[in-house]
Parts: sequence; structure tokens; C-alpha cells
Amino acid sequence: MKLVRFGASGAEKPGLFDAQGVLRDLSGAVPDIDSALLAQDGLKKLTSLKPEDLPVVEGEPRIGPCVGKIGKIVCVGLNYSDHAKESGAATPTEPILFLKPSSSICGPYDGVEIPRGSEKTDWEVELGVVIGRRAKYVDEAKALDYVAGYCLVNDVSERAYQLERLGQWDKGKGHDTFAPIGPWLVTRDEVPNPQALRLWTEVNGKRYQDGSTANMIFDVKTLICYISKFMTLEPGDIISTGTPAGVGMGQSPVLYLREGDVMKLGIQGLGEQQQRCIAPT
Amino acid sequence: MKLVRFGASGAEKPGLFDAQGVLRDLSGAVPDIDSALLAQDGLKKLTSLKPEDLPVVEGEPRIGPCVGKIGKIVCVGLNYSDHAKESGAATPTEPILFLKPSSSICGPYDGVEIPRGSEKTDWEVELGVVIGRRAKYVDEAKALDYVAGYCLVNDVSERAYQLERLGQWDKGKGHDTFAPIGPWLVTRDEVPNPQALRLWTEVNGKRYQDGSTANMIFDVKTLICYISKFMTLEPGDIISTGTPAGVGMGQSPVLYLREGDVMKLGIQGLGEQQQRCIAPT
Repeated sequence: MKLVRFGASGAEKPGLFDAQGVLRDLSGAVPDIDSALLAQDGLKKLTSLKPEDLPVVEGEPRIGPCVGKIGKIVCVGLNYSDHAKESGAATPTEPILFLKPSSSICGPYDGVEIPRGSEKTDWEVELGVVIGRRAKYVDEAKALDYVAGYCLVNDVSERAYQLERLGQWDKGKGHDTFAPIGPWLVTRDEVPNPQALRLWTEVNGKRYQDGSTANMIFDVKTLICYISKFMTLEPGDIISTGTPAGVGMGQSPVLYLREGDVMKLGIQGLGEQQQRCIAPT
Repeated sequence: MKLVRFGASGAEKPGLFDAQGVLRDLSGAVPDIDSALLAQDGLKKLTSLKPEDLPVVEGEPRIGPCVGKIGKIVCVGLNYSDHAKESGAATPTEPILFLKPSSSICGPYDGVEIPRGSEKTDWEVELGVVIGRRAKYVDEAKALDYVAGYCLVNDVSERAYQLERLGQWDKGKGHDTFAPIGPWLVTRDEVPNPQALRLWTEVNGKRYQDGSTANMIFDVKTLICYISKFMTLEPGDIISTGTPAGVGMGQSPVLYLREGDVMKLGIQGLGEQQQRCIAPT
């Protein structure tokens, strides 16, 4: 299933895209696609529905983040060796973790804010892993059983805030709109191998990132096992698994986002996002 | 007002401690003391209530975290110069920020887990600032207007995970039960000067931390203004403002927590916490 949430920000309804790409309304079946539904194993209930029986959503509503009430976003830093290299960093010997706050989440086509005075706002296409079951000290061999599905994440980053303003990366990763998520939560059954997905980013029509999840240093099952030793992963949490080479910081000369720029990014089978860069609201 | 949440974890009810220290039930007046209530300016509604008219809560129920549905906990690192010194770190020239995940939150008397294999779990008594209004690019002069109240936070930390396991501090700050919060949300009107509060920690009956919020490098209003440039603070968010000297890492020789150890900590006017260290559940 390709699950979505549509409607105004904060008032999204659940839906799905059927095999023909038609948006159907799921609000008669479940209240939302959110952490509460996932905690109740609620996606199972949806598998018995026939998409053609669901009401068609008319018009072109806004698409929101594909999961509601996300508890946390755990991000993995420098998880592709080519990106570590372009960042001038050593290849990590174990996963680097940081967090993005829930206030940074937005929909896949919403405007992305360039913070006031920012000169180094950058893009990062990433595979998002949506957790379906509480995961604490889980075995690597069983780690994928804890996955509800996958989605596209743009781990928008302000490099000066991240790297030049003392200390922790979180400072450059958490601005409002720095976590566009979606368009779809694609359930796990439709992604047999999360380590064989092409992912890419274009800015103003030019392709800068073009990689494959095959090149992750630490794969999805390793990450789930690893993170679950440091903090419990809960239903609706998202792991953002790192980005391949081709970010703005890695260009020569470096290239950062300005108001009016347009990012377009995608992952094979998980859909595409497009964001225009805007002033803070 | 001294607002509390009481009852089983995940099913807490709102309450308050009256002037005589009697726990009264607020569930007839508001559904919860949480981010939703704060977003609706719901504390105002409570000021018209007479505590003596509220039902007394019988027995000694568990006390939960004093705010429900916390969106994020923004922590400030090395914000007391004596603690920076004992940590072997330079005095910061601007605030160091990191995040604790919502899954790390627990009540003030709940057991604190020593992660499997952990040898460096440590304590940090901190003044928590509970946000009452959405704060984005706020002026320092008006910053305290965005505060709903204050509470006690133990920023429990695993120093090896924080400092020796590659990269970001978040890895050592986010284990389940690493954020005991409460017992009380003390409303702002009862804390005329947040920079004049004594705070302390005892472990197994011996006092290790004994400081004053007067010694913060960056005070509460500076922190709110500063953080609001990097991420929006929302109602129910908590800023944990850093810890004074006397953590386990700063002892000579160093001293860390083991299962069975008991932490007791407090802040003048904000109550006390007590946690026994336990194995992960």
C-alpha cells in the first residue's frame, strides 16, 4: 500500500494511492495514519480493504507528512562513504546518530524555509524507515520485522549551524520545515530489499545527488539493531538513514540554497518530493 | 500553582498540590496537563478554580512527568562554568544544544535504567523551562512571556555513549528513563526569578551537586531567544538548561551509577525527585 495523509497542515486525513495512482479516502476506515494506528497494528486492518471501494478524493489537496504524531526522527550521519568523503570526514566505524525535532516536520511539497541570515542551507535525500513495533535491544536478524514501511525524507541541513556554531549537529538540523516526509508510506511488503533503491536530488532542474541505498555503510537492519541499544524505537518513529554524495557542501565550489530555489528529490518506488525555498513564516 | 500528573504511566490524570501539600484531582476541569492544554492557554482557566473545591486524591498514586505529550526536550550543554571546567571543556561562547527524545521521559520517582553493559551512567540536575506559547525568533526582552512554568529535570547521561561512541551527544542522552521530569510544573507567577534557585543532587545519601541557577552562563531568557532562531519552541516543549558542577564524571576518581543506587535531587521551590537505578525492562 501507498499510504498518504492529505489536507491542511495539522488537519490531515488518511488516504491511499491505488494502483492507478488515484487518491482514495481512508478516513472511513481509520482515524489517521499515525503512531497510534501503528501501535495498534492498524495497518493490518487496511489490507482487507479493496481500494476500489474507497471514495475518490476530488481535486488536488495538499499532501502532508505520511505519518502523523511522529515521536522522534533518529538520523544517521555520514552513512554513505562517498558522502563522508565529500564532507571531509572519516568513514564512520559505527553509526553516528542525531535527532531532528518533531517541529521540523512538514509535507513533501511544502515550502522549505531558509532561516534568517542563513547562507548554508543544504539538501539531503534519505531513505526513511517507519517503525511499526516497539524495538528495544532487538536482534539484527529480526530487525526488519519492526518496520512498518519506508518513505522519502529530505534531511534539510544548515551547515554553518551544524558545524560552525559550537557542538552538536542538532542545531543545524531542526529548523521548521527541515524534515519534509512523504509523499507515501510504502508498506514493507512492497519494498522487498531496502538496500537496492536508487535515490536522487535535483536543484533548479540540475541533478546533484544520484546514488543507491546499496552503498549505505550500515544497512537498515544494522541500524535498527544498533539504535535500539541506545533508545527505544516506538511505532511511528522514523529512522532517516543518511544521504549519498552530491550535497551542496560537497560541490566545488560549494552551492547552497537561496529563496526561490526548487528542490526535487525521489527514491525508487517511494515517490518524489518538490519544495520551493521560502522565507521563514 | 503546582501542577502534577498522577496515575499509571501513559494514563496519568491532571492534579495539583494545594497550599497544604494535599493532592487534588483536576480531571473534572481539564483533560490533562499537556501540550494541547498549554496551546489553548488552558492554564488560565485553572487560575479561577479554588483548590479546596477540588476532590482530594486518596492514597499515594504514582506521580508521572508533569507535562504530557511533550513535543521536544531541547537541552543546553555546559551551561555552568564550573561544570564545563570539571568536564575538561572550554566555557562555551554560545549555547550548545542537543535533544532528548520523547521516549526517554519518565516520572520523577520512576526507576532509571542502567543500559545493558553501561559503565558510565551519570546524573545532572537541571532547571526545566516549560514553554507556554509558540516561540520563533523571539526578542530576549520578551522571552519570559513564552514560559508556562518551571520544573525539575534529571538529564541522565551515559558518558561513554555521549563522548566515546562517535559523534553526537544524543547517543548518550536518550535511553529510556533518562529524562525524569517533575514532580511539579510550577507556574511562572510562582517563580519570579528563575536565576536565583538552588539546585542539588545526592547519590546514596551523599551530596554531589549543590549549585545555583545564578551561575548559568546563558540565562533562561537568553536561551529562549537563542533557541528560537534555530527551531520553533512549541507549547509543552521543555528546555533543560544545563547542570552545575558535581556530576559523576567530575569526581576524583570518577563515580558512575550502578543498579541499586539511589539519586535524590531537587530545586528550590520546584520539589524533589528520587530514582532507584534498575536494569532495563
